[in-house]
Amino acid sequence: MTADCFAVKGNIFYSKDMVTIKVVPDGYIVCETGKVKGVYEVLPDELTHINIIDYGDRLIIPGLVDIHTHAPQYSFRGLGMDLELIDWLNQNAFPEEAKYSDMEYARRAYAIFVNDLKKSATTRACIFGTIHVDATIILMDLLEATGLKCMVGKVNMDRNSPEYICESGAGSIENTKKWLRESADKYKNIRPILTPRFLPACSDWLLKELSHIRKEYGCPVQSHLSENIAEVEWVKALFPKARNYGDAYDSFGLFGKEAPTVMAHCVYTNGEEMKLIKKNGVFVAHCPESNINLSSGIAPVRAYINERIPVGLGTDMAAGSSNSIFKAMTKAIQVSKLKWKLADRSLKPLTIDEAFYLGTKGGGAFFGKVGSFEEGYEFDAVVLDDGNLLHPQPLTLKQRLERIIYLSDDRNIVAKYAAGKHIWPEPANSRSVAADLT
Amino acid sequence: MTADCFAVKGNIFYSKDMVTIKVVPDGYIVCETGKVKGVYEVLPDELTHINIIDYGDRLIIPGLVDIHTHAPQYSFRGLGMDLELIDWLNQNAFPEEAKYSDMEYARRAYAIFVNDLKKSATTRACIFGTIHVDATIILMDLLEATGLKCMVGKVNMDRNSPEYICESGAGSIENTKKWLRESADKYKNIRPILTPRFLPACSDWLLKELSHIRKEYGCPVQSHLSENIAEVEWVKALFPKARNYGDAYDSFGLFGKEAPTVMAHCVYTNGEEMKLIKKNGVFVAHCPESNINLSSGIAPVRAYINERIPVGLGTDMAAGSSNSIFKAMTKAIQVSKLKWKLADRSLKPLTIDEAFYLGTKGGGAFFGKVGSFEEGYEFDAVVLDDGNLLHPQPLTLKQRLERIIYLSDDRNIVAKYAAGKHIWPEPANSRSVAADLT
Repeated sequence: MTADCFAVKGNIFYSKDMVTIKVVPDGYIVCETGKVKGVYEVLPDELTHINIIDYGDRLIIPGLVDIHTHAPQYSFRGLGMDLELIDWLNQNAFPEEAKYSDMEYARRAYAIFVNDLKKSATTRACIFGTIHVDATIILMDLLEATGLKCMVGKVNMDRNSPEYICESGAGSIENTKKWLRESADKYKNIRPILTPRFLPACSDWLLKELSHIRKEYGCPVQSHLSENIAEVEWVKALFPKARNYGDAYDSFGLFGKEAPTVMAHCVYTNGEEMKLIKKNGVFVAHCPESNINLSSGIAPVRAYINERIPVGLGTDMAAGSSNSIFKAMTKAIQVSKLKWKLADRSLKPLTIDEAFYLGTKGGGAFFGKVGSFEEGYEFDAVVLDDGNLLHPQPLTLKQRLERIIYLSDDRNIVAKYAAGKHIWPEPANSRSVAADLT
Repeated sequence: MTADCFAVKGNIFYSKDMVTIKVVPDGYIVCETGKVKGVYEVLPDELTHINIIDYGDRLIIPGLVDIHTHAPQYSFRGLGMDLELIDWLNQNAFPEEAKYSDMEYARRAYAIFVNDLKKSATTRACIFGTIHVDATIILMDLLEATGLKCMVGKVNMDRNSPEYICESGAGSIENTKKWLRESADKYKNIRPILTPRFLPACSDWLLKELSHIRKEYGCPVQSHLSENIAEVEWVKALFPKARNYGDAYDSFGLFGKEAPTVMAHCVYTNGEEMKLIKKNGVFVAHCPESNINLSSGIAPVRAYINERIPVGLGTDMAAGSSNSIFKAMTKAIQVSKLKWKLADRSLKPLTIDEAFYLGTKGGGAFFGKVGSFEEGYEFDAVVLDDGNLLHPQPLTLKQRLERIIYLSDDRNIVAKYAAGKHIWPEPANSRSVAADLT
């Protein structure tokens, strides 16, 4: 046993499988060199001398995992929700993203995003930046300082986009290499992820070159898949040889297999595309609020679960309005009920245990052994105080967790750990991201 | 002009119609004896001497109106969401409501509900209690002290309910009269509303007698209508002579006309029932989150709007998890998008202006001239500070309101007025409901 060993004590919740949340009342999680050594009802004799942080009657859950969101769009969350995807991109997202060519703006805007993410229950996230290298580096620097474990991508787009946000193919590749060189070995917590925006915005040449870069740098990949009917039709027209949207990515080596890949949405995925996702081990980032707000539809998450396709949750701001994966869990349950009621009676609604799994271990798997308190998992944890959620009756621990999922906000978060390190709240004397908030 | 005249100053928002929210930057609302005298960009000369409460750059909107919720169910909000209506009532709602025969429990539970409602942006609400007279009086007492303007109902149910929560018909009528006598002339802010639970739980005899009581006491009426398919079928079987669920209420004189009536849900209302609602001037309480959580479906609100049927919003806790009418506005927009996308392309999604109208003037109309700042309206107002919703770019006032609707919580509420009276926050030395919180 190393010196870097401690325990947290409290009411512990985590998922081993999707069926039932495991509950350990008043138990101990032992963390050794950043990883879970074990969960114990009673601390074994050989561990009784380690430092114990006692959180009393509070709840301790794995850190939440957000496997799809857009940092530059956070500035217009809650705005302009009357459009569908393509119009929404052109009217809301692209004009805002263009502003990140201005470093002063990027610093100010990203500080707001990062500061709020730090205060949320999220410990891991896959994050889109913009096409701009310098702004993306600023985002990575700010995130690094928080201790959050993130994958961050400089976006690639070289066609079918407004001129002010469109790269040349060669420029996009050159900048991607510059970004990867600049971020190499710079970060402990942040990792670059290749980020072709979506197929309509990327030429064949660009996709091919990105695939080469991916191999050279060993990056994972994030993008969008089958989100909206008009978008899917557009991709069909742009890639006439591809059997489906996913197959087009696959033809460029950007769809799982040796390239760990997370694809957001998958609302209109079925048949062949679903088989390919499964075969290639592609992760689905289910973003229920985004899919409602942009009138995209409801992803068939139950079908993915039945097929044992890896699924996690995404907030997809600013098509989603909130950075909370708790809210994504409740939204995932809610839309699954509507899917079942209005569209397909064979796809039964998600349970609270399943939604909790998706927001922890489900998405966490994209980061490795993350999102659970099973032995060997990285110790990401959130400590929650539900004391302000008053109630007149006794509640079981499971009920207390349900209420946290449906009712909590950042006020309920007492402490946060990522990979064994206490990251929130910061000690009073540390330099905070808040210093960048003006 | 009376001595009881003052102005509030700030950025003012209100609805005259459903099409466009009226915005008056840095304007004045003048309140005289509890009613709006006018909204002014510049205060007229004859009013310059009145007291002005300057809220600076903050937002001032009409108090929000919740026309359907259940106070006793607040204790289990966010719990047990895996059931549909009838099973949910039997497993969750009825066992909890039975506890309100215990006055100590009722006082403790209702204090939590009332304290949270006080801190919300709601100024008016139509509220279900339980069958218990004494507990309902406690609820009314607690609400009265807050200054909120509410209609509160002792529930009637004499069949098809578990024995522990079922009244005899005669007992239900006797208790209703007792409750009305006890609450008569007792309250300034709270008004009793007749509350047959829903048709399956009320015998013909009970409904007939309630109709007589209604006439005698001049009460309005609240209940549930066409929420769930199994429920609608059940009503068909119970009232074989009725042409539809609404017609059955109407046959007992409990469906609008001389009896001001609000009916929750109306998810499966169409054709004849919709015509009857319109003809009788019945209010529809649209409760989008509840309809999702219980897998009820999505109410055709656009059709009601097209027909000029009066519609307001309801939180319907605890089938809804939140007491926030802001959240009900966003949910109303969101489900309308899914209705349009998945079920009926003729029912176009609600706009933010329409949702704001529904949560203010739409529901407010059930209380009279309430929910707007037009001349003669009762002065219900909420003052909001959006300073914690940081953003890097300039925003229009309308955008600031949109963000309040999507992103705010109780921390953004600076002050609240109902019928001209400042009701929140309470002065430091007043006796608060919080004293009942244990």
